[in-house]
Amino acid sequence: MRLIRSIKGMSLASCKIKERGKSIGFVPTMGALHKGHLSLIRRARKDNDFVVVSIFVNPTQFSPQEDFKRYPRPIKKDIAICRKAGVDFVFYPEAGDMYPAGFKTYAAVEDLSSVLCGRSRTGHFRGVTTVVAKLFNIVQPNRAYFGQKDAQQAAIIKRMTEDLNFPIQIKVMPTFREKDGLAMSSRNIYLNQREKKDALVLIQALKLAKALVRRGIKDTKRIISRMRQVIAGKKNIRIDYISIVDLNELKPVKRICGSVLVALAVFIGKTRLIDNAIIKNA
Amino acid sequence: MRLIRSIKGMSLASCKIKERGKSIGFVPTMGALHKGHLSLIRRARKDNDFVVVSIFVNPTQFSPQEDFKRYPRPIKKDIAICRKAGVDFVFYPEAGDMYPAGFKTYAAVEDLSSVLCGRSRTGHFRGVTTVVAKLFNIVQPNRAYFGQKDAQQAAIIKRMTEDLNFPIQIKVMPTFREKDGLAMSSRNIYLNQREKKDALVLIQALKLAKALVRRGIKDTKRIISRMRQVIAGKKNIRIDYISIVDLNELKPVKRICGSVLVALAVFIGKTRLIDNAIIKNA
Repeated sequence: MRLIRSIKGMSLASCKIKERGKSIGFVPTMGALHKGHLSLIRRARKDNDFVVVSIFVNPTQFSPQEDFKRYPRPIKKDIAICRKAGVDFVFYPEAGDMYPAGFKTYAAVEDLSSVLCGRSRTGHFRGVTTVVAKLFNIVQPNRAYFGQKDAQQAAIIKRMTEDLNFPIQIKVMPTFREKDGLAMSSRNIYLNQREKKDALVLIQALKLAKALVRRGIKDTKRIISRMRQVIAGKKNIRIDYISIVDLNELKPVKRICGSVLVALAVFIGKTRLIDNAIIKNA
Repeated sequence: MRLIRSIKGMSLASCKIKERGKSIGFVPTMGALHKGHLSLIRRARKDNDFVVVSIFVNPTQFSPQEDFKRYPRPIKKDIAICRKAGVDFVFYPEAGDMYPAGFKTYAAVEDLSSVLCGRSRTGHFRGVTTVVAKLFNIVQPNRAYFGQKDAQQAAIIKRMTEDLNFPIQIKVMPTFREKDGLAMSSRNIYLNQREKKDALVLIQALKLAKALVRRGIKDTKRIISRMRQVIAGKKNIRIDYISIVDLNELKPVKRICGSVLVALAVFIGKTRLIDNAIIKNA
């Protein structure tokens, strides 16, 4: 496995692979790798000749009041995980190289970026799409892998890839969960024992939504109201949003018909967690 | 020479070339090819194994009141010119394929896009950078060729290419001129005989600027004022802007020191023409 820090070095390595007609699978991450990431890497390993994992805590996707500085960066551990998983290249660039003085270009997906998480995280998705566009151009993958846990991010990146004609297949893999149902997230390490238990309201609310739909309830207002009740009882938890939207446009749905995305974000203490489920009205 | 209309077809052709380790030179155009375009094609022919010319009158770079509908589209003639010039692929996509329903992604370069031509052509450069990003991803060139006539466009595309890490070299070639000095432009066909003569004020104003700098005048306000006088006398001509800016940031310069870009845009009747010169204060 090769650890590459320079953009030029990564670009060159990718060019050589592509010139030989070999395929590249790419897993972009912010590090602090967990089993969710590992499932993406494993799938990339299976589908491609070469696997590239990037580790970059991208400053442009954090607002000033967010946890950029505090975000976990266990780089040695991450590298060991990649090596063990059979990754070929870890691309670990420096922020000053990714965003040099005079940087002023952004890739942005309208509409999709201003709803759900985009409402409370202004500029977040513009930061995500910009860094992903950069990484796509540097790594030149045939396939790129993202987790369904970040459902809005996945929808936005799919849209960008299609709209800007990146010659890349976007693969979205299922959310990986702890045994108790908590979705894997690098931010889970912020939680103390008590908060970890509290965080189970996310999956409980989603399960309730599923059960309600199974019982034939299609009115999303009613479902969201019941989900709110699950969470409202808890101290130390604040709801950011609970939404039921269509899968492509992420626009609120009034009555469930076909597949919808049920998504929510809550603050457990100071930690913001998200989760979602695709629910089908059979 | 192959004429390709589908995005997939072009993308596939490019992938095959890249897989063989061959290079692609790309000349993106809006058609109505003139000798300026030809000089770009010739250079691309010299530098690369394969040459791709795109012909696409890009709707997103025209404002509603501009000449999108009226813009010349002599496609048969353009194809014949490409064939004669030894082009390998003409990519001639349809607007509905480039911008399908639901399209919502834009690549934009801040600051540089809102000055000079960007002031009177709101959204123009965002349209340009978006379509160029798309074309870059479809054609996957090693080198792309642009004319210095569109100096601001060239600066913006260079910036985007660098910022988003496109693995592409941007080559900016000198402005091609008629014998009388008028810069070649697809929009020159809008001009009647009288207007064609009037249009010479552009090159006259630029020559004056050069002469003034050669005489040691460094105060840009004074130079611009003298350039205005050249044009102000003419009926039927309206100045959009005359600016002297630095080459990278396109910010107004007060005193000339080193190289600067002297750029201007005027309306000759209803036709908006631009021209520019890089002037060096030795």
